[in-house]
Amino acid sequence: MKISPISGFPEYLPSQRIVEQHFLDVIRETFELHGYPSIETRAVEPVERLLGKGGDADKEIYGIRRLAADEATAAADSELGLHFDLTVPFARYVLENAGHLSFPFRRYQIQKVWRGERPQEGRYREFTQADIDVVDVGELAPHFEAEMPLVIAEVFRKLPIPPMVIQVNNRKIPEGFYRGIGIEDVAGTLRIVDKLDKIGPDKVAEQLVAAGCTPEQAQQCLALAGIRSADLSFVEQVRALGVSHPTLDEGLDALAAVIRAGMDNAPGAMVADLKIARGLDYYTGTVYETQLAGYESWGSFCSGGRYDSLASDGKTTYPGVGISIGVSRLLGLLLSKGLVTASRSTPAAVLVAVNDEESRPTSVGIATALRQRGIPCEVAPKPAKFGKQIRYAERRGIPYVWFPGAAESGGDQVKDIRSGQQDDADASTWQPPAEDLRPQVTAGADPSP
Amino acid sequence: MKISPISGFPEYLPSQRIVEQHFLDVIRETFELHGYPSIETRAVEPVERLLGKGGDADKEIYGIRRLAADEATAAADSELGLHFDLTVPFARYVLENAGHLSFPFRRYQIQKVWRGERPQEGRYREFTQADIDVVDVGELAPHFEAEMPLVIAEVFRKLPIPPMVIQVNNRKIPEGFYRGIGIEDVAGTLRIVDKLDKIGPDKVAEQLVAAGCTPEQAQQCLALAGIRSADLSFVEQVRALGVSHPTLDEGLDALAAVIRAGMDNAPGAMVADLKIARGLDYYTGTVYETQLAGYESWGSFCSGGRYDSLASDGKTTYPGVGISIGVSRLLGLLLSKGLVTASRSTPAAVLVAVNDEESRPTSVGIATALRQRGIPCEVAPKPAKFGKQIRYAERRGIPYVWFPGAAESGGDQVKDIRSGQQDDADASTWQPPAEDLRPQVTAGADPSP
Repeated sequence: MKISPISGFPEYLPSQRIVEQHFLDVIRETFELHGYPSIETRAVEPVERLLGKGGDADKEIYGIRRLAADEATAAADSELGLHFDLTVPFARYVLENAGHLSFPFRRYQIQKVWRGERPQEGRYREFTQADIDVVDVGELAPHFEAEMPLVIAEVFRKLPIPPMVIQVNNRKIPEGFYRGIGIEDVAGTLRIVDKLDKIGPDKVAEQLVAAGCTPEQAQQCLALAGIRSADLSFVEQVRALGVSHPTLDEGLDALAAVIRAGMDNAPGAMVADLKIARGLDYYTGTVYETQLAGYESWGSFCSGGRYDSLASDGKTTYPGVGISIGVSRLLGLLLSKGLVTASRSTPAAVLVAVNDEESRPTSVGIATALRQRGIPCEVAPKPAKFGKQIRYAERRGIPYVWFPGAAESGGDQVKDIRSGQQDDADASTWQPPAEDLRPQVTAGADPSP
Repeated sequence: MKISPISGFPEYLPSQRIVEQHFLDVIRETFELHGYPSIETRAVEPVERLLGKGGDADKEIYGIRRLAADEATAAADSELGLHFDLTVPFARYVLENAGHLSFPFRRYQIQKVWRGERPQEGRYREFTQADIDVVDVGELAPHFEAEMPLVIAEVFRKLPIPPMVIQVNNRKIPEGFYRGIGIEDVAGTLRIVDKLDKIGPDKVAEQLVAAGCTPEQAQQCLALAGIRSADLSFVEQVRALGVSHPTLDEGLDALAAVIRAGMDNAPGAMVADLKIARGLDYYTGTVYETQLAGYESWGSFCSGGRYDSLASDGKTTYPGVGISIGVSRLLGLLLSKGLVTASRSTPAAVLVAVNDEESRPTSVGIATALRQRGIPCEVAPKPAKFGKQIRYAERRGIPYVWFPGAAESGGDQVKDIRSGQQDDADASTWQPPAEDLRPQVTAGADPSP
């Protein structure tokens, strides 16, 4: 049976997986420092629930069915599908467990999702997302809208990647502005303006006029969408357009609060960018997108926003705000361009050599002593010539080889195979430099040829 | 739309997920200390590949299909199914990436798998497994068969669970023994003896005779299966049965080597248990099962063995040995019986109180200072009365509440809400006791009522 990759379902080699693990560890650690507990939801939801959300997501859903199902049970099985994001399952989880959760309820969720889309560069059928959300009952305090990008900015600051810029807007700004200049179809106008980066200002103006705007209204929309500032000056720039509407004022105040929190706590991480709209209709306040410096054409790697009705059971409504890191998309770019690399392909920092098969227990004992002090190691598979055992370590990037009984005293020695330096060592006390203990994940191309 | 759990697809509340994370962290950390790199494989494999392995697994496979697929593409989609274990995908991964891997190749893999089985206690349709395997090209050194249970014994020693006993056997022992007493149908005999724990010795003897054994042969089979020792005395007990066969000798030597390594490195963790057979036909040497003390009737929580042909591409054969922890099964038991518990339902060690909404930036600044030194914390959602902010922390199990400016000096104070002790504190130096920094996961029932 022929073996070949399945398009859209990427897999990593061990050294690439070490990069992915480092990214996921930094994400998790940062989310937890900010007090977010983890949840995971099952991979499947009723198809009916999946179809109800996320716009035209119905085109993308994978249904599942038991291959051995008979007619009767097949009907029931066919109602389950793989989740295509983590927001729909989270909303269901909140409703299902509301009685057991304390509100406002924060959570992070790092899981795979599946979409039956046509695979293309940076788009997968199976991929990992890392989400944080906060939901509350009835009302959600606005300071949570400032918290989301601060957490994300900290994640990106800790990762070995080019600068990330979190673009923030508030839906109320275009909504109030459009109403202030007499445009009624806010959603339709937003959808056209959202294409600005793709089709340019001339085409946007054309489409706006085709949709019923006057040329003056179209130019005003473009002027608003052109405003971008890393500080609070966007407020004055909007005011200078001479439009006034209470919803616009609300939006400007809310966005200013988010940007001010960014200036105070994560300088340089955020910009107010008034063209950001997000395609999805359910956002009602702050919205976020994120660009990687130098790779703007790849689109957003981290997006989200506030929704006044994340979930509702008819009696109670749960407003929320959330943001989602596209981990697989980001890694796909970084790995394919050689922008990030792991120092080795195994967690082992030490290979304990084996002098002969009879003395393997001695080598195993040394490895046990090293592990008890947290030093990852493995024992050589064969009592080969030392040169061969060193090459075994080299191929995996293991920095140290331990030679039992190699010292004149009869004690052990350890060799740093990068420098060739070989010293007497005692397994109960020897410690590698901290940077050698775990694989290092750093920016830049793989140094190996 | 009604919301209800889906049978066989368990989900955890945040405090239960903290228990699961602790288990997964211990498993990962131990695997990495032993030099195992991680891989993940895609969730799907061609159905043809899934059907080819694992006995009657075809009954259990979930196929996937795009709901929006038209006739033509539906045909192609229907050839993919969700993996039901991590061994079949690993074998495929080894063949697909052999040119990029260094052999012998170790890996660990912690992922969800799916089986369309009828759900019952301790059986799920979606569950997490944690596997380690070593594969080599052509030949696999026997010491790896001793390594597997040593790694697993270390995992179980570090987990807050009752004692685990790893039962080890070697397929060559019953095979040589059966041949030595004139039984030709080794596989058929093994399958019957494997039911010993379920149906008892009388029924096993009955079935063996029905399958063509003499009553004496049946009694010999039962005598062999009854042998169990934590030391090497099993060898003498087998010898005392007076059977000899070269394959039996090989098996006894191999099992003695594994048990000896266990006695040296993990005393009390392993027993030689000659009734262990494992249902699957592809095991050819050492086999492992694992019982939780006091919960033997739940069956094995960790199983595996050696297979001389894990994978083959026609030219090259890759023998391997592996073992798999049934993480979800184990957690399902422990959580349902209240045998393990987390000290809180959030990673946050500190809740920073908010005096009034205007001073929120002060509280955010304190939280930032604490986080910079690795202390997980969150800022109170509302400037409510302090009693209310304390109750917010209490409900989540957060041990400390930080009061900005509460000291007579105008500095801050921190209260341990369990003892009521409140002291002056500085966010740039204060450190909680190590055991309060992260949620503690311990054996025993949830202390809350």
